Amino acid sequence: MSAGALPPRVRIVEVGPRDGLQNECVALGIDDRLTLIDRLADAGLRDIEAGAFVSPKRVPNMAGSGELMQRLPRRAGVSYPCLVPNDTGLDAALAAGCTDIALFAAVSETFSQRNTACSIAESMDRLSAVARRALDAGVRVRGYLSCVIGCPYEGAVESRKVADMAARLIDMGCYEVSLGDTTGIGTPAQIAALIDTVAAQVAVTRLAGHFHDTWGMGAANVWAALQRGVTVFDASVGGLGGCPFAPGASGNVATEDLVYMLDGAGIETGIDLRALVDTARWISARLDRAPASRVARAFPPTPER
Amino acid sequence: MSAGALPPRVRIVEVGPRDGLQNECVALGIDDRLTLIDRLADAGLRDIEAGAFVSPKRVPNMAGSGELMQRLPRRAGVSYPCLVPNDTGLDAALAAGCTDIALFAAVSETFSQRNTACSIAESMDRLSAVARRALDAGVRVRGYLSCVIGCPYEGAVESRKVADMAARLIDMGCYEVSLGDTTGIGTPAQIAALIDTVAAQVAVTRLAGHFHDTWGMGAANVWAALQRGVTVFDASVGGLGGCPFAPGASGNVATEDLVYMLDGAGIETGIDLRALVDTARWISARLDRAPASRVARAFPPTPER
Repeated sequence: MSAGALPPRVRIVEVGPRDGLQNECVALGIDDRLTLIDRLADAGLRDIEAGAFVSPKRVPNMAGSGELMQRLPRRAGVSYPCLVPNDTGLDAALAAGCTDIALFAAVSETFSQRNTACSIAESMDRLSAVARRALDAGVRVRGYLSCVIGCPYEGAVESRKVADMAARLIDMGCYEVSLGDTTGIGTPAQIAALIDTVAAQVAVTRLAGHFHDTWGMGAANVWAALQRGVTVFDASVGGLGGCPFAPGASGNVATEDLVYMLDGAGIETGIDLRALVDTARWISARLDRAPASRVARAFPPTPER
Repeated sequence: MSAGALPPRVRIVEVGPRDGLQNECVALGIDDRLTLIDRLADAGLRDIEAGAFVSPKRVPNMAGSGELMQRLPRRAGVSYPCLVPNDTGLDAALAAGCTDIALFAAVSETFSQRNTACSIAESMDRLSAVARRALDAGVRVRGYLSCVIGCPYEGAVESRKVADMAARLIDMGCYEVSLGDTTGIGTPAQIAALIDTVAAQVAVTRLAGHFHDTWGMGAANVWAALQRGVTVFDASVGGLGGCPFAPGASGNVATEDLVYMLDGAGIETGIDLRALVDTARWISARLDRAPASRVARAFPPTPER
């Protein structure tokens, strides 16, 4: 396909404050998390996943998401979705003033059992009920599918199953379904084939790509999905999400790597790369680690003001 | 373009023992370099850049390339090209029994002056004479162009200039021209556009892609070039070539990342990924550093035999 067929604009959903921080080995306090969200909005991000209403015992890094959402100064034109696994989570999200939530399901039966302690069928029924309540309350609902290429327990995942579940999430009222390559094992050819299969059942404009960089394929996979018509991508500033002490662990594709690639194609994102890189360096320092992204390491230093 | 239009086979030119080691901050002895080349051949590499006949004062890591080539046990079907900058280098290469050499020129005038102390025009005349002598001696000649996307001194580089110089290298008898994004700043859209421009003057089957991962675009750029018809790529095992103490420095795209991506597309390379990853880990340990590639970090450990 020719470069002319690329879209003029891509929407990036920043997941660093949630999917990223959740999987770091250092837990940050609410003040730091609020500052991170604020800096990301300053850099031009307009969709910033802010927290998760999950058990603080199971996911300690997301503790206090209610307080965070209550304290977060909302900006016009910026959405702050939060992850919600069930009715209890939705109650807490609504109480904290959330107007955007994200639901998630795994495409693999074993992963679903281990991660959410129920079968895929049970999980979808539960999500459907949560979605209905959220929509009735005027809340926008986004859907996530995890393990869309492979599952750590079951191996390869059938794309047809991904397509069926994506269609169900749309049917239950999700405005968009984010396809998550949770283990980062997907390669561009596989991502392109997956998008084609899913797009046969769900309009490609309702799909987002959510790729992890564990096997170094993050940017290439975004490029492949972009060529198949996907125009929404999840990414985390600084490549947050890979605890540096866990060998091979790696976070989402870094927002700054993605913006750099899209800038190079003349594709508009509305994001200021320098401000984003500064934020990647700041949050990485707060986590006492080097930024996981090449762009944050290669970008020239910002002069002191 | 559909995945069906991808080539069935890609040839990978391993440049770790030369372009990689040359730019590491630890210099290895000839024994280690010979072992590296041997392990790469064991892993299935059939083009292994083995050394450089350059001034050991300017490029100390390549010292002893003559001895290395004399001691290297040649395998049938494997080529071991060496970098040769001038007549003196060619003399030494011929004396050491080289049957494959590589010549290089920069597309940017300033880079040419600083790197080879002559203008582009002078450089091309000199290379032309070296190529003629080499061909007369029955030696195969490969061409490199550096700074094909951008130059650290001059900024953006015109693709038409790259095309003209690539055509000249082919005219002087190079069987192939490797297009080097020396600073790694290129993005997939730029690489695709470059290939199209150069392929208007040189058959795409005579082009190779040589991408550095400094800005995290290595794999994505290979993918983009592959879609434009390029089927030969340079890569370095372990992502060798980025001294870890130089901020932002980064080597070639890692051979194992590339093989992983191509395996995922069902594209044959003839390379055993596990053996390659083991080699990446071994050479990184010899350099007292972690492998720069994600695949070498994510790949499951090889059980002790």
